[in-house]
Amino acid sequence: VAKVTVDMSMSLDGYITGPNGGAGNPLDDGGERLHRWAYELASWRERQGIAGGRTNRDAEVVEESFANVGATVMDRRMFDEGEVPWGDEPPFRMLVFVLTHDAREKLVKGGGTTFTFVTDSIESALRQATAAAGDKDVRIAGGANTVQQFSRAGLLDELQIHLAPVFLGDGVRLFDHLGTEHIKLERTRVIESAGVTHLKFRVVKED
Amino acid sequence: VAKVTVDMSMSLDGYITGPNGGAGNPLDDGGERLHRWAYELASWRERQGIAGGRTNRDAEVVEESFANVGATVMDRRMFDEGEVPWGDEPPFRMLVFVLTHDAREKLVKGGGTTFTFVTDSIESALRQATAAAGDKDVRIAGGANTVQQFSRAGLLDELQIHLAPVFLGDGVRLFDHLGTEHIKLERTRVIESAGVTHLKFRVVKED
Repeated sequence: VAKVTVDMSMSLDGYITGPNGGAGNPLDDGGERLHRWAYELASWRERQGIAGGRTNRDAEVVEESFANVGATVMDRRMFDEGEVPWGDEPPFRMLVFVLTHDAREKLVKGGGTTFTFVTDSIESALRQATAAAGDKDVRIAGGANTVQQFSRAGLLDELQIHLAPVFLGDGVRLFDHLGTEHIKLERTRVIESAGVTHLKFRVVKED
Repeated sequence: VAKVTVDMSMSLDGYITGPNGGAGNPLDDGGERLHRWAYELASWRERQGIAGGRTNRDAEVVEESFANVGATVMDRRMFDEGEVPWGDEPPFRMLVFVLTHDAREKLVKGGGTTFTFVTDSIESALRQATAAAGDKDVRIAGGANTVQQFSRAGLLDELQIHLAPVFLGDGVRLFDHLGTEHIKLERTRVIESAGVTHLKFRVVKED
């Protein structure tokens, strides 16, 4: 595997979802403002199976982000919230490993997405995702708690934060409960556009 | 007055001071990592009355930031924590209005800094600072609670965040308790250097 990555839109006040999210309200009360920068992009729409859209620097960032990922890990809560809105052709188009306490049969969807349910540990999910990803990255897709678990375990290699110039005021923060271990970061790239700032960080591992 | 501004270093997880700050530990447990990007800069050192230092893009950002400010507002807690380390020539070199519950005589320091203690309201402090600033900006220097009060009252015009690629894990978050009013932001500038990303935002006022 190349890297274990996180790639998320975050508000200036640190939230990746606004308040009152959950099944039936997957984008929560602030999500539209947080993700607005991506909706019109051709590369984002293509992943959702929608034609057309803009091609610009933001679209290239999204395209690059998708292209590098060979397998996805997410938690059960994210799966539950997303399953209905993602529909018959979820935007992942790869193997997705879902961390859950409830064993469940593999779920094969259209467009190349298969959900595999992992009940033992984040390390086990990462091992399976790594094998599936080949020479591509493993993306930890969410939610925040799961990203934080991977971070505390020292398993993340790279973060891309799409910093949206909005305040959500409440919701779920990405960078919370990171533990007391000192995580060293190096900012490796900045790309700006009118609606968002794309910030990439490498997690520096001290050998 | 030109603008009411905030200009602060913030960690990627949103903190402007780490844990265990206070009088006797003014830079708290994470502050050194948060502010490291500035220490070696000529423009920062000059304000502290120290010769030498680097001149680069970061130094220009700091110089510009200082040059635009005509008066400063801070709260009593920030004043108490800073008074000793700032010494006889505090780095402000202008009128500083300190929000406090305890009336107190003006405190004249060297290098042009005078602390005036304001007991009535943030609006009163802003009025006095505005009069003192002339055609320059009023800087709300901190702490976080005071910035949040000004924000909730709709009194901020511009934010510059020096986003440091560090996690502090705990401490005081800048963008917390912002209230439920929708604050609309426009990101107006991004300047990157190796150690920090300078992000400027305008608070969009709907007329």
